[in-house]
Amino acid sequence: MAFMRNCWYVASWTHSLTASCPLAVTIIDEPLVLFRTREGSAAALRDCCCHRNAPLSHGRCENGVLRCMYHGLMFDGSGQCVGIPGQTHIPSTCRVRSYPVLESRGCVFVWMGDPARADPLLIPLPDDYDPRDWDLRWTQCDLRTHYMLMNDNLADMSHVAFLHEATFGGGDTRIAETHPTITRLERGLRVERWLSDRDRVEHWLPDESNPAPDRRQDMWLAYDLIAPGIFVMRTEIHRAGVARESGYTAPTLPPLHSNLNVQAVTPVSETSMRHFFALGPPRLETQDNPALADAMFQLMCKGFEEDRIMLEAQQRNINRWPVQAANAIRHDRGVHLLRRIIDNLVKQDSESAPAPGVSSAGASTASSASLPIS
Amino acid sequence: MAFMRNCWYVASWTHSLTASCPLAVTIIDEPLVLFRTREGSAAALRDCCCHRNAPLSHGRCENGVLRCMYHGLMFDGSGQCVGIPGQTHIPSTCRVRSYPVLESRGCVFVWMGDPARADPLLIPLPDDYDPRDWDLRWTQCDLRTHYMLMNDNLADMSHVAFLHEATFGGGDTRIAETHPTITRLERGLRVERWLSDRDRVEHWLPDESNPAPDRRQDMWLAYDLIAPGIFVMRTEIHRAGVARESGYTAPTLPPLHSNLNVQAVTPVSETSMRHFFALGPPRLETQDNPALADAMFQLMCKGFEEDRIMLEAQQRNINRWPVQAANAIRHDRGVHLLRRIIDNLVKQDSESAPAPGVSSAGASTASSASLPIS
Amino acid sequence: MAFMRNCWYVASWTHSLTASCPLAVTIIDEPLVLFRTREGSAAALRDCCCHRNAPLSHGRCENGVLRCMYHGLMFDGSGQCVGIPGQTHIPSTCRVRSYPVLESRGCVFVWMGDPARADPLLIPLPDDYDPRDWDLRWTQCDLRTHYMLMNDNLADMSHVAFLHEATFGGGDTRIAETHPTITRLERGLRVERWLSDRDRVEHWLPDESNPAPDRRQDMWLAYDLIAPGIFVMRTEIHRAGVARESGYTAPTLPPLHSNLNVQAVTPVSETSMRHFFALGPPRLETQDNPALADAMFQLMCKGFEEDRIMLEAQQRNINRWPVQAANAIRHDRGVHLLRRIIDNLVKQDSESAPAPGVSSAGASTASSASLPIS
Repeated sequence: MAFMRNCWYVASWTHSLTASCPLAVTIIDEPLVLFRTREGSAAALRDCCCHRNAPLSHGRCENGVLRCMYHGLMFDGSGQCVGIPGQTHIPSTCRVRSYPVLESRGCVFVWMGDPARADPLLIPLPDDYDPRDWDLRWTQCDLRTHYMLMNDNLADMSHVAFLHEATFGGGDTRIAETHPTITRLERGLRVERWLSDRDRVEHWLPDESNPAPDRRQDMWLAYDLIAPGIFVMRTEIHRAGVARESGYTAPTLPPLHSNLNVQAVTPVSETSMRHFFALGPPRLETQDNPALADAMFQLMCKGFEEDRIMLEAQQRNINRWPVQAANAIRHDRGVHLLRRIIDNLVKQDSESAPAPGVSSAGASTASSASLPIS
Repeated sequence: MAFMRNCWYVASWTHSLTASCPLAVTIIDEPLVLFRTREGSAAALRDCCCHRNAPLSHGRCENGVLRCMYHGLMFDGSGQCVGIPGQTHIPSTCRVRSYPVLESRGCVFVWMGDPARADPLLIPLPDDYDPRDWDLRWTQCDLRTHYMLMNDNLADMSHVAFLHEATFGGGDTRIAETHPTITRLERGLRVERWLSDRDRVEHWLPDESNPAPDRRQDMWLAYDLIAPGIFVMRTEIHRAGVARESGYTAPTLPPLHSNLNVQAVTPVSETSMRHFFALGPPRLETQDNPALADAMFQLMCKGFEEDRIMLEAQQRNINRWPVQAANAIRHDRGVHLLRRIIDNLVKQDSESAPAPGVSSAGASTASSASLPIS
Repeated sequence: MAFMRNCWYVASWTHSLTASCPLAVTIIDEPLVLFRTREGSAAALRDCCCHRNAPLSHGRCENGVLRCMYHGLMFDGSGQCVGIPGQTHIPSTCRVRSYPVLESRGCVFVWMGDPARADPLLIPLPDDYDPRDWDLRWTQCDLRTHYMLMNDNLADMSHVAFLHEATFGGGDTRIAETHPTITRLERGLRVERWLSDRDRVEHWLPDESNPAPDRRQDMWLAYDLIAPGIFVMRTEIHRAGVARESGYTAPTLPPLHSNLNVQAVTPVSETSMRHFFALGPPRLETQDNPALADAMFQLMCKGFEEDRIMLEAQQRNINRWPVQAANAIRHDRGVHLLRRIIDNLVKQDSESAPAPGVSSAGASTASSASLPIS
């Protein structure tokens, strides 16, 4: 399956890209080097010096210019060579490919397709959150699996009951026994649900950092999953009864506890991907409970390690039996919908002109473009 | 070289397959999951959930049913799905492939070919031993080599003088200077020999566990090697002179010491195999000498590590020079005979109907089918 | 790019090949075993027993004969089998391929091409040094890179300013800002230069082993780089002013300090090579300063590790973008010249007869064949 090209991929968390050190990343089989120019903006070049193929990511940042540390050539953020040791003439053809870059709300995005089509409105983040309001812990992990297996995983939370029984799931299998509301966005899904009258889910947190001591609780889960693979989920804990009082739709009452989870799925190759993830409670909650964000982070890392083991094994099976037909189950609705959306976006890539109506996207247009699926 | 399909392969030692935990094994490139049904009998399924390719070996045994721990589907020993979370309808087409399984004398055998041809009489074990009479230590090891290189190894014991000089061989090179009697069985070889008037071979055992202190000894070695690769050897130590008194044929006197060695060679892929091995003295001997079985086990593990290193290097050479002709030597008789037998069995696999006269096999029919080769 | 075949490759340092132990080496994709015959001369055979493909390098040296330690066959230095356990007849066809071998000044050379063309005059070492005059430390390292990337590296020292800034370079970038004199040899290059009025370069040596305490110095660097990849460099430290007094040509005054560096680049496969290197001061210097050779050796190992990391990354980039054109810079002169020389030698390999005028080579003929390049 071909990769989407005309889209923004998360290349790095913003804080991972410093002014002092270039950063190597690979996206859809293209090795890139990221660095910061003199103005502090992020730049992305092919990670290959146009002199003798040395990796520029082994280079050195010198006042916003990147020096190749093999023979000393220097490149600016546009990829143009601006210095060659031992000679004064610099051919204008001495340059490496550059890629459009944008930073938004903690993420460095790179556009891998036609630079003329790079559109800031296509940044695949929902509008309705500001990461600075949350006490997030940010990290990343590499998986030897096709990135769509992670998108499948995120599009169907029923697996939490089984794969994450010991972490996120907490032994409650109702998330697999019932079904969420799935809404189609222009380039993704919105998935929402209540899990009502359940044991408190923070059983896995240390007592001193447990923010919601009530035993019976209602839990609201709502996330957007936007192509090529950005996931933003809000979890809210309410007292038992709020689900019913809200008519099983989005709650309007303030929650007892909430958290924000941001994930990005970036394809590295046909069989590998980088998983970016961040999780945390509101900053207001952690003022009185500084251990809470750390405890949640530890839980998240353990849970996503369960995903890594499963998805890598799933990929090995797919390599072994590539044509095996999958038996669909009812929980696959979101999976199939997201696959169709991404398939269509891949097809649009191969068209010569931008498709009409794709000039904006993301959850910001969800209200007008939404289409309930049941 | 194609693999035999219509035969029983050792998939596991019986004791390694418990009621509580599924077991992943790969045989002739087919990843399988073994588990025990409610009745305790062994079952073998393709290790790939028919929903989304998750490995069933990462699953959980629940009262004789295997649950996939990705999305929670459940399968019985026939491969039929018997539960899907979130829905009541279970399509009868929701099933995974199953394989015939038999257990016999410590081994779990799986039939990889046409299930209609799976014949218990083809279980490749000699009739004349009961593992419960022996104080065996059982283990296994994976080798990155074609399984026929291990069968070649087992079909010619002359290598013990060189490769195992420091372990099994004990510095005695007469096993390479003389030749055994080789008898053709219906699906394998019987190899028998005396090594007479030799230093005691237990030099490698600690003194306290040395069962045969006489310095000069006669040793009787007799083994069956049956396709696809099961090896059962009895070693007997007699006082010097018994070989001649027996006319250099099988001894009838009780030995000073004896041991049983069971090995199974299971192909995993074209370049990898699993080696199962067990060794031990009679239970009657270890009542007075409990350290003896452990000492023999340590020796065996060290010796088979010598084989692993050599066979993996041999495989690398074969990969490098695949068409190199081998110079045959006199010790290759058993090797060539076993290769012909297995080649013929592979050819029979590609015939549509079972070949006449192959409905029973193994050493049990050796006396009628035997054919001396000298 | 095809490998040169009709040439001498360094297979080992002389001291690494002992009488007691065979040595496995791979050159241009041919696995070899080296051992010493009864007379002490080196022999090279294909590392594959002609019986059943066992590696002879796992074998045992027995009085100048190599015994395969799988089934015990024995081979002499010509590759002829001279012993088969269990039989007296040894077919004359039972033999393995042998390769011409020569030893010279610390190196074991193997000829990988037509044995009839193996010519001692083609040994690729300059005549004008005797390793016994130098207190050399010898070692080797394996790199996952095509050997020509190391030859490129050695043909252009400008990279010392950047890649080796913290080791050989010492922060002085003038080696990249100026250019050496390059002279074409019959099968290689001679590269010579002064770096004048510079800080003393031994900053990296411990004070007690620093042989040249003058602060301002002139440094003379001169090396031959001969196909397929032998590098012999002399470095001389002189007082400031000697460069100018010598008219910027080779100095005739004795240096304050000097050292000899010998390297050999041996291709193992299309993407791997073995790097042999040795470095040291004159024996006369180390009589009063025994720590000097060790300090230089440590510096060298650290510096060549910088090369290894860069060249392996460069190779990965070449694998990723194999057709990318390189932008040439002025410092590439030596690189391009050596590439042309080796390309021509590869072409000569495919001709049926030895090319005229190639019967002698190396720096010994440099004075007559030299051709200045500027």
